[in-house]
Amino acid sequence: QIDSARLWGSIHETAQFGATAKGGVRRLTLSAEDKQVRDWFRKACEEAGLEVHTDALGSQFGLRKGRDMSKPPVGIGSHLDTQPTGGKYDGILGTLGALEVIRTLNDAGIETEAPICVVNWTNEEGSRFAPAMMASAAYVGDFTTDDILSRKDAEGTTVGQALDSIGYRGDKPVGFQKLGCFVELHIEQGPILEAEGKTIGVVDSGQGVLWYDGKISGFESHAGSTPMPLRRDALATLSEIVLAMESIAKKLGPNAVGTIGEAVIANPSRNVIPGEIAFTMDCRSADGAIMDALDRDLRAAIAEIAERRKVDVKVDLVWRKPPTHFDPKLIAAVENAAKTLGYSSRRITSGAGHDACNLNTVMPAAMVFVPCKDGISHNELEDATQPDCAAGTNVLMHTVLAIAGV
Amino acid sequence: QIDSARLWGSIHETAQFGATAKGGVRRLTLSAEDKQVRDWFRKACEEAGLEVHTDALGSQFGLRKGRDMSKPPVGIGSHLDTQPTGGKYDGILGTLGALEVIRTLNDAGIETEAPICVVNWTNEEGSRFAPAMMASAAYVGDFTTDDILSRKDAEGTTVGQALDSIGYRGDKPVGFQKLGCFVELHIEQGPILEAEGKTIGVVDSGQGVLWYDGKISGFESHAGSTPMPLRRDALATLSEIVLAMESIAKKLGPNAVGTIGEAVIANPSRNVIPGEIAFTMDCRSADGAIMDALDRDLRAAIAEIAERRKVDVKVDLVWRKPPTHFDPKLIAAVENAAKTLGYSSRRITSGAGHDACNLNTVMPAAMVFVPCKDGISHNELEDATQPDCAAGTNVLMHTVLAIAGV
Ligand SMILES: NC(=O)NCCC(=O)O
Ligand SMILES: NC(=O)NCCC(=O)O
Repeated sequence: QIDSARLWGSIHETAQFGATAKGGVRRLTLSAEDKQVRDWFRKACEEAGLEVHTDALGSQFGLRKGRDMSKPPVGIGSHLDTQPTGGKYDGILGTLGALEVIRTLNDAGIETEAPICVVNWTNEEGSRFAPAMMASAAYVGDFTTDDILSRKDAEGTTVGQALDSIGYRGDKPVGFQKLGCFVELHIEQGPILEAEGKTIGVVDSGQGVLWYDGKISGFESHAGSTPMPLRRDALATLSEIVLAMESIAKKLGPNAVGTIGEAVIANPSRNVIPGEIAFTMDCRSADGAIMDALDRDLRAAIAEIAERRKVDVKVDLVWRKPPTHFDPKLIAAVENAAKTLGYSSRRITSGAGHDACNLNTVMPAAMVFVPCKDGISHNELEDATQPDCAAGTNVLMHTVLAIAGV
Repeated sequence: QIDSARLWGSIHETAQFGATAKGGVRRLTLSAEDKQVRDWFRKACEEAGLEVHTDALGSQFGLRKGRDMSKPPVGIGSHLDTQPTGGKYDGILGTLGALEVIRTLNDAGIETEAPICVVNWTNEEGSRFAPAMMASAAYVGDFTTDDILSRKDAEGTTVGQALDSIGYRGDKPVGFQKLGCFVELHIEQGPILEAEGKTIGVVDSGQGVLWYDGKISGFESHAGSTPMPLRRDALATLSEIVLAMESIAKKLGPNAVGTIGEAVIANPSRNVIPGEIAFTMDCRSADGAIMDALDRDLRAAIAEIAERRKVDVKVDLVWRKPPTHFDPKLIAAVENAAKTLGYSSRRITSGAGHDACNLNTVMPAAMVFVPCKDGISHNELEDATQPDCAAGTNVLMHTVLAIAGV
């Protein structure tokens, strides 16, 4: 059994780095607050006897030796960055839970056959730089390191510049640390476990993701003197797109979601009809065919709206992540650990994307979910209980022991 | 006849202060560019022999003596501030046209019975500070000077601070310069004169204006893991409000418009459902009963949307300007001047608000419109022809001569 109080203490100690007034965390990737938590994490890993290295995209790897160093390490961990209005658990539980597993094994003097590697992946959230789960995507070869280093945030700062500014452009090439498999602990970020009174979610699949950048070009014009029928209003156009996306996602059933999270009017003024708007879109489904339908229906709706309103709408697909189907053997190992420990569990699909989804494309991967309050995440009110966090970490540890061998 | 080339030269010389790449002007009120054009204007007025004073809100008054100084001056002028993406004519034609009238009278050695006062009103546009036509509103007593001085822009800078920062907080109290009447020359900012091939618009009325500040409070949540039916999406709410306003304005007939020009998502992120949005609304009609209907229907629609979507929407009316009915005698004087000069003309309603609308509440006022290309205004592409600008300035001059007496 892991040390629940120690785990809880680590979560709340690091929550100070970027703490918000509403009890959440604002710790955008590669920000000053991210540097603080990275420094804390490196020190904690070193104190736990791990050999810590940082790769060229800033991901941190802490290696615990195994009896058989010819075996590839079992990877565990998650991320320490947050949304602009994020919570204390998203990613953090999985990373500090992984650290807690190491600490517990140390305390118990348990040596494993295969080594274990604790990982903090850079920019999982994707709110400062797109795409999300950027560093693990580069790790599995979906993007080159140079491509990722050149990605820009809204201010035009590149990933490379941001890494340098906090001193976290590591000396190891991306992929230097081979892993045999990867297990990630995470809060559910949805309402199912809580509603059904289950402690552990055995994640068997994950939704695919479509990310788009959009731009509407209408025509700026006087709010008072431009008759309604003559307007080419970029905001009215966006409004129709937002509602079209909502109804398309609803029509495609419970297994589809669509969101417009960002929309910025260029040179806004009270008495000017908006002429130009930049926006982003996020569509998801665990079913590849539904993802295709989302893309097709959305593009058709946008084309119709743009033509009718005589405005120009450009939509670029900037990221496509297919649905994830985790490794059956690892899924069974997680399920087994939960059962052995006496926790109630159920199979579950992840609504969010995770680094484990990327790793699953090149190695066996799996995930452990624990409930979060009201299913709320990406919100400062995100919450989870100490017993649930401890339960998830115990399941993580027992899964790791089963895979790594004692 | 005024000097068409000199007028055109002044317009294009001052267009350098805040010139944009697309051929427009960005000269927000009380900005560094506004200081430049104010300095230019003061110097030009002084060179034309005017006695120039600035009031506590930065409005500039240039007085030309009349034979009978016991008579209140005839006020002419407009404004030199622009929208963020404004044009070269909106306000500028009326201010520099007024200067051109003075220069022409000087050249011709014409003395008038009553004095003439050229005015550049501060913050007519209302895009940096609300409401629009702020200084003329204070002049007529709709707001106190202190109230206006405390109004803030989006950065939190007050009108008072902005005035001080460019050295234009004048030593004269607001209202120091009495005026007997006011005549304002302006581009139409609408498509009617051009469509009908008329040179002069004799403005007999102006639309009333309703300005609102709005705030939507939904709930931030994960774009991937939050099922569509559980969302309290602030942007979807705004979208319904935008489209409701559009259909309400259309339903209330050609004599009503409604615009949402500003909308800002708090802490936006691609994969976060928007939780909070601040927005503004602008509704207008030349008919008071239709203004009331706009207000009522809009509030009802918003209440219905907010309740159905389980979000909170706050709407504050921050400005209400009733419809304007200009002075019949001055309207006739403008019409007469156009006829005498041989220009085609028609009566017209102003879609935009103007300082003359404020002044009309305490003194006789009227306006002269000239066509602008495709009715486009509040846009960098705003355009007008040299002959039309000259024609409008001639009508202004002859109207002034008729009122002031030669
Ligand atoms: N787990 C999580 O919130 N990841 C962020 C990436 C995404 O799914 O949008
Ligand atoms: N004339 C003009 O564009 N005024 C700005 C104020 C408004 O009507 O919105």
